[in-house]
Amino acid sequence: MERPQQPMKILQKMVGKRVVVRLKNNRVVRGVLVNYDDCMNLILDEGEEMDQRGENVVVKYGRLIIKGTQVLYITSEEAVG
Amino acid sequence: MERPQQPMKILQKMVGKRVVVRLKNNRVVRGVLVNYDDCMNLILDEGEEMDQRGENVVVKYGRLIIKGTQVLYITSEEAVG
Amino acid sequence: MERPQQPMKILQKMVGKRVVVRLKNNRVVRGVLVNYDDCMNLILDEGEEMDQRGENVVVKYGRLIIKGTQVLYITSEEAVG
Amino acid sequence: MERPQQPMKILQKMVGKRVVVRLKNNRVVRGVLVNYDDCMNLILDEGEEMDQRGENVVVKYGRLIIKGTQVLYITSEEAVG
Amino acid sequence: MERPQQPMKILQKMVGKRVVVRLKNNRVVRGVLVNYDDCMNLILDEGEEMDQRGENVVVKYGRLIIKGTQVLYITSEEAVG
Amino acid sequence: MERPQQPMKILQKMVGKRVVVRLKNNRVVRGVLVNYDDCMNLILDEGEEMDQRGENVVVKYGRLIIKGTQVLYITSEEAVG
Amino acid sequence: MERPQQPMKILQKMVGKRVVVRLKNNRVVRGVLVNYDDCMNLILDEGEEMDQRGENVVVKYGRLIIKGTQVLYITSEEAVG
Repeated sequence: MERPQQPMKILQKMVGKRVVVRLKNNRVVRGVLVNYDDCMNLILDEGEEMDQRGENVVVKYGRLIIKGTQVLYITSEEAVG
Repeated sequence: MERPQQPMKILQKMVGKRVVVRLKNNRVVRGVLVNYDDCMNLILDEGEEMDQRGENVVVKYGRLIIKGTQVLYITSEEAVG
Repeated sequence: MERPQQPMKILQKMVGKRVVVRLKNNRVVRGVLVNYDDCMNLILDEGEEMDQRGENVVVKYGRLIIKGTQVLYITSEEAVG
Repeated sequence: MERPQQPMKILQKMVGKRVVVRLKNNRVVRGVLVNYDDCMNLILDEGEEMDQRGENVVVKYGRLIIKGTQVLYITSEEAVG
Repeated sequence: MERPQQPMKILQKMVGKRVVVRLKNNRVVRGVLVNYDDCMNLILDEGEEMDQRGENVVVKYGRLIIKGTQVLYITSEEAVG
Repeated sequence: MERPQQPMKILQKMVGKRVVVRLKNNRVVRGVLVNYDDCMNLILDEGEEMDQRGENVVVKYGRLIIKGTQVLYITSEEAVG
Repeated sequence: MERPQQPMKILQKMVGKRVVVRLKNNRVVRGVLVNYDDCMNLILDEGEEMDQRGENVVVKYGRLIIKGTQVLYITSEEAVG
């Protein structure tokens, strides 16, 4: 049986994939995860800010550096059923 | 008599089970607890965001990485009476 | 004269008793204190979420792990006069 | 001339006296200070929660453990002029 | 030329003087600064809580212990022009 | 294949470029990134505060020192598609 | 070419100059920067609190000690174009 992985290691598997990030102030951003560090600071490419329901693009950014302290949760976009 | 367990060890027992997590901004997410770390960062599979009463699914996610600093409480779904 | 006890030691005396916990976002939960750690992370059994006045049960949970950083105060239910 | 005392030592002088504690979310609790620790975690006996103006008792508790991180200020009830 | 002083040392000069303290939740308290520590925990004597504009006394306290983490700014009352 | 870079190193590449910074309280500032440190404290030149949608200039500043703890995300203005 | 300076060193250059400081709760204070420390605690002389748009003086203070944890950004008043 595969041993479950630590949260920070799961992030490693998401590098290069599209992720959705909800921030503490309820904002939702998405993009391609380029990298992260131990504080969960994230770099996204093709960054976009979504409306609060995460359905419509509000602003298009390029590369985005997100402060780890502001992250609520991260999910892999492809994984959504 | 069984000695009561530390909070972080109780989390170990919840791995593989369905949990409900209420976040600081009152959001409720649920899913199968895959793993956690010492900061209570959590990985959930079959992650879903619920309405604030925790009754209806609002968004379906796949794998979800939740920031431990944002967790209010965690409960095992099966344990609800 | 009995020397007063440290706050964390008082928690030890509450283990096995019913406690009421008010959280930072004004939510009130109650249950039987199973254990705690140095961060005041708490485990409750027969956990219930109350309305903000702490009078009516809103949701029934089973085992509840509460994040210590989110605790406002804890009181022993039996001690209420 | 008496040298002024450190804030934490002043707390020592309040042990056994009635204190009023205002919390970060504007709640006011009062009771007899039983003990405290270096994080300003407080134990009160005959704990009561007051309305926000600190005039009327809203809920009566017994022993109360207050999280130091949530304290705004503490004052000795007897000292009020 | 006199070398400017560190913020914590300026506090030393305010001991024994009347100060006004604005707190994070916009509350204003004033009184005579008795002492402080490295966390900017403050002790005030003849403590009073003012309205948010800092003009009228709302509650009179005696000795007040203010949590440093809650302080927004401190000013010497005499210094106001 | 180029190895992805750490978030803090990506900031190095933005020095001298125009950046948009969203702050925790939803304010948006933009300007030329002059420098930063490990806490993500930022120095901007030709600093401007924008409306919350980041579309119109509300106030023009010169040099701006932004507290890293207040940063939500940073993006390079040129990168916006 | 002059190497860009660290944020804390830029503060050194502002000593003796008029600065505008926006605080986390959106308050704006201004005055002459007397000194600062590594936590960005600031001392201002001729301190004034402005309205939220930073246009009109609301209260005049003398010397002001501002808690670094509460600072959102600092700008040199002279630098505004």
